[in-house]
Amino acid sequence: MSLLPPQITKTIEEFSKLPGIGPKSAERLTFHLLRSSKASPEGLGKALGELKVALEYCKTCQMVCLQEECSICSDSSRDHSMILVVENPLDVVAFENTSYKGVYHVLHGVLSPIDGMGPEQLKLKELIDRCQSGVSEVIVATNPDIEGEATASYIHDQLKDKVEAVTRLAHGLPMGADIEFADQVTLRQAVEGRRRI
Amino acid sequence: MSLLPPQITKTIEEFSKLPGIGPKSAERLTFHLLRSSKASPEGLGKALGELKVALEYCKTCQMVCLQEECSICSDSSRDHSMILVVENPLDVVAFENTSYKGVYHVLHGVLSPIDGMGPEQLKLKELIDRCQSGVSEVIVATNPDIEGEATASYIHDQLKDKVEAVTRLAHGLPMGADIEFADQVTLRQAVEGRRRI
Repeated sequence: MSLLPPQITKTIEEFSKLPGIGPKSAERLTFHLLRSSKASPEGLGKALGELKVALEYCKTCQMVCLQEECSICSDSSRDHSMILVVENPLDVVAFENTSYKGVYHVLHGVLSPIDGMGPEQLKLKELIDRCQSGVSEVIVATNPDIEGEATASYIHDQLKDKVEAVTRLAHGLPMGADIEFADQVTLRQAVEGRRRI
Repeated sequence: MSLLPPQITKTIEEFSKLPGIGPKSAERLTFHLLRSSKASPEGLGKALGELKVALEYCKTCQMVCLQEECSICSDSSRDHSMILVVENPLDVVAFENTSYKGVYHVLHGVLSPIDGMGPEQLKLKELIDRCQSGVSEVIVATNPDIEGEATASYIHDQLKDKVEAVTRLAHGLPMGADIEFADQVTLRQAVEGRRRI
């Protein structure tokens, strides 16, 4: 690769560090940025340079924000006795599109020993501290996969004596699903979790 | 998305402009850069900011380089009467791993009216100028697809009266291929282009 100028090989190398981007994709992205009229290396470079500047994490819920406390935690019209625990900030954005009116707690990851993610790497201590008083329900909204279930189970163990209810999001058929093609675990959970009409 | 700080939405937006990266991938990349210990937004941002700084295109072959003329064009031991025409700078890197000893010409694209790429958008005028004297063979090494074939045909029309030979890379079975699974166009070309052993 010594034929290519060093700033090009450096950019290819940095792109290659991102998840899902291999050396060939990194080359394609780099040369696209050199030629494209729509995307520019300066635009993306500037955005990345400023990404962490002035970025704060809410002292209460750990959501990314620009102040010490995020707009949800400082909103007194919301139900502060109900905490919905999510893996990352984008999950908060997803729940904000529903009618949920409680507050959140962002873990910034899930328990995953293979990736070096133990309880200390997550914002679990902050969650336990919040639950010392005034919290009646903690809804664990980690993803329905192995790491998410393990994390939910860990949170339940830690909080069961501190809050009235530790709940988990309902599992079952998603809207628009086709029963014929649903997997057996989902179908079993849908039967187990059935409700009166 | 107004819940997320502006520097995060801006980075997501800039990533989304890249080919093959949709809004969801852009979100994933942005949050990966915020958390990862290996990749950092500053590292990629700095590399992108410097990508076009001091970057030149060789005045002769249009290869990316740091001087007015690239190391291949200024090498007097190479055969300057033979020009291999490629689509982009990475193709030059690929051919440099072979024993090719002529020089190159980088088109920076192929003819593709649907993408707004006509002869004026490519470095075709520069190629025709180079062929006014001292060039005995032009090898067209555009990709074997519709745009590449159209470009090869256009270059042949423009240069057939100026240089002794305008040639095209051989088409046929690649090394390690399985005849059983080869497509019919490749097989037909492999029979047409057969050679004595």
